Amino acid sequence: MKRIPFDQLQQTFKHILLQLSFTEEKAALCAGIFAANSRDGVHSHGLNRFPVFVQYIKDGLVNPSAEPELQSSNGLIETWNGNLGAGMYNATKAMQRAITLATDNGIGCVALQNTNHWMRGGTYGWQAADAGCIGICFTNAIAGMPAWGGAEPVLGNNPLVIAVPRTKGHIVLDMAMSQFSYGKMQEYELKHEQLPVPGGYDDAGNLTTNPSAIRANKRALPIGFWKGSSLALVLDIVLTALSGGRSTTKITADKKEYGVSQCFICLRQPDMHDALVEEILAYTKSSQPAMPGGRISYPGENTLRTRVQSEKEGVLVNEEIWEQVLQLK
Amino acid sequence: MKRIPFDQLQQTFKHILLQLSFTEEKAALCAGIFAANSRDGVHSHGLNRFPVFVQYIKDGLVNPSAEPELQSSNGLIETWNGNLGAGMYNATKAMQRAITLATDNGIGCVALQNTNHWMRGGTYGWQAADAGCIGICFTNAIAGMPAWGGAEPVLGNNPLVIAVPRTKGHIVLDMAMSQFSYGKMQEYELKHEQLPVPGGYDDAGNLTTNPSAIRANKRALPIGFWKGSSLALVLDIVLTALSGGRSTTKITADKKEYGVSQCFICLRQPDMHDALVEEILAYTKSSQPAMPGGRISYPGENTLRTRVQSEKEGVLVNEEIWEQVLQLK
Repeated sequence: MKRIPFDQLQQTFKHILLQLSFTEEKAALCAGIFAANSRDGVHSHGLNRFPVFVQYIKDGLVNPSAEPELQSSNGLIETWNGNLGAGMYNATKAMQRAITLATDNGIGCVALQNTNHWMRGGTYGWQAADAGCIGICFTNAIAGMPAWGGAEPVLGNNPLVIAVPRTKGHIVLDMAMSQFSYGKMQEYELKHEQLPVPGGYDDAGNLTTNPSAIRANKRALPIGFWKGSSLALVLDIVLTALSGGRSTTKITADKKEYGVSQCFICLRQPDMHDALVEEILAYTKSSQPAMPGGRISYPGENTLRTRVQSEKEGVLVNEEIWEQVLQLK
Repeated sequence: MKRIPFDQLQQTFKHILLQLSFTEEKAALCAGIFAANSRDGVHSHGLNRFPVFVQYIKDGLVNPSAEPELQSSNGLIETWNGNLGAGMYNATKAMQRAITLATDNGIGCVALQNTNHWMRGGTYGWQAADAGCIGICFTNAIAGMPAWGGAEPVLGNNPLVIAVPRTKGHIVLDMAMSQFSYGKMQEYELKHEQLPVPGGYDDAGNLTTNPSAIRANKRALPIGFWKGSSLALVLDIVLTALSGGRSTTKITADKKEYGVSQCFICLRQPDMHDALVEEILAYTKSSQPAMPGGRISYPGENTLRTRVQSEKEGVLVNEEIWEQVLQLK
């Protein structure tokens, strides 16, 4: 790993996207999101994912010239069609629209169908919180996790994001429904390490911390066993019911993950009770640590710390992937 | 356990509540919810909880004559004050208001402060789905679970409910953030059984399936370790930011669980894409079972099966607690 300036990362991505017939605005936005994901320490959806994104464009699975379109409006729920455009662009537009609805009406919802992978869900949580809104968003995905009681992957990891604005640093939960992502399990496998807690089942149906076994049989563990399984299923159902878009069922049938469904809800109150929220954080953090010297973090805290460090010292990049991306220029 | 008719259960509860100066309407509603919780198999928040509820009224923690009041209105988010009234009554009124807002505007939200335990959260999910709405609701609670990295309980189990209407039986997720409730752990302890999966930490900080150890040290496990811990914290923060009500911090400081905060969101589209939802359920259920003869359920499916059986054969009750309740008449 080495560190490079944020601007260099973003400009490199932008340069490549412009060559792929992105507009200036769209290239800047998408490049900024990839660079920010690396800056915030989410390498799997930053630099490391960029070559895959480029390949999806070249394969015609992501249409760089598509714009999201309003399909129907039902009070303060709007349904948009992403027209298979760039996922992070569509998601940003959708969250922006939900922010506008909530700013005018307290609450608003955008259901987005026919879009693509949004990379890091937290991006849109930070966006909502930066605009002073509570942001809730979730997406479906290709099947990668069995339902509780099943042995084959039929559920997406369907990340859920909940963000609350806060002067001293937003609270941003960004949580997939599997205990570990396949990307994270691969990291452990490459280091020849076991997972810190069980992450799935082995072929005999026993819980295992062996990342290779789980990557091979795709029996990833939902968080909280039956609970995460149910939550992943229900989020997919809500997405499908609201947007009329493709469910995990349909996405999985096509083998390649594209044309997913997403939902963006914003809420805003004139007074968001900052002092009461600070009291919650202080109380939670005051608790005795489980390990001597341990500390308790709120969701988003480590992201912000990584961001501040990256802004000072440059963004950490995997040198091999960085060289690979430079070849795309 | 023996079975008694639903009506007898409800009438008995109602009779007792009328003696505690509940109005006719409020007694009928609360009695119906307690009876329905037992009917649906959620005994911990049905008959088994009724004597505790009566004691809370006698102790002055639940005010039977309080009515919820609109405090402020911000577009389609309304803030209501529960005035420390009966929790299931306030929650029903709040969800009804969210249903009305969503029926008129696609989406609506009621933030409720200063209310009391709603018993089974799923009750209000079924209510929303019966009205044709997607219902999302959550509550905070007294601390009973450490935050990730901590050794003392500072988080509530903060149940989250998500319900989707469906002709053949609603989909209703009702999920607390701890792997097991303390009530459930007590059931295992009384049967001298271990938990089926780890439910918390022992005093040495190791994961354990021993319900007695966890009940003693209050180190219950959040679902998905750090993930459920973060989700429980964020739900409490959202509740506090939206309602200005009491957080888990404040509830816990008072030692007794009362004056909690809740949120009710409804969404409704003209077309909720029933056929696509059926396709998801069929696909999920078609997966190969992990155990021979096993089956995969959607959230709400087992509840509905229990309900149908109770309606045919009568509601299962713990005879000892039933006798105890009859003494209250």
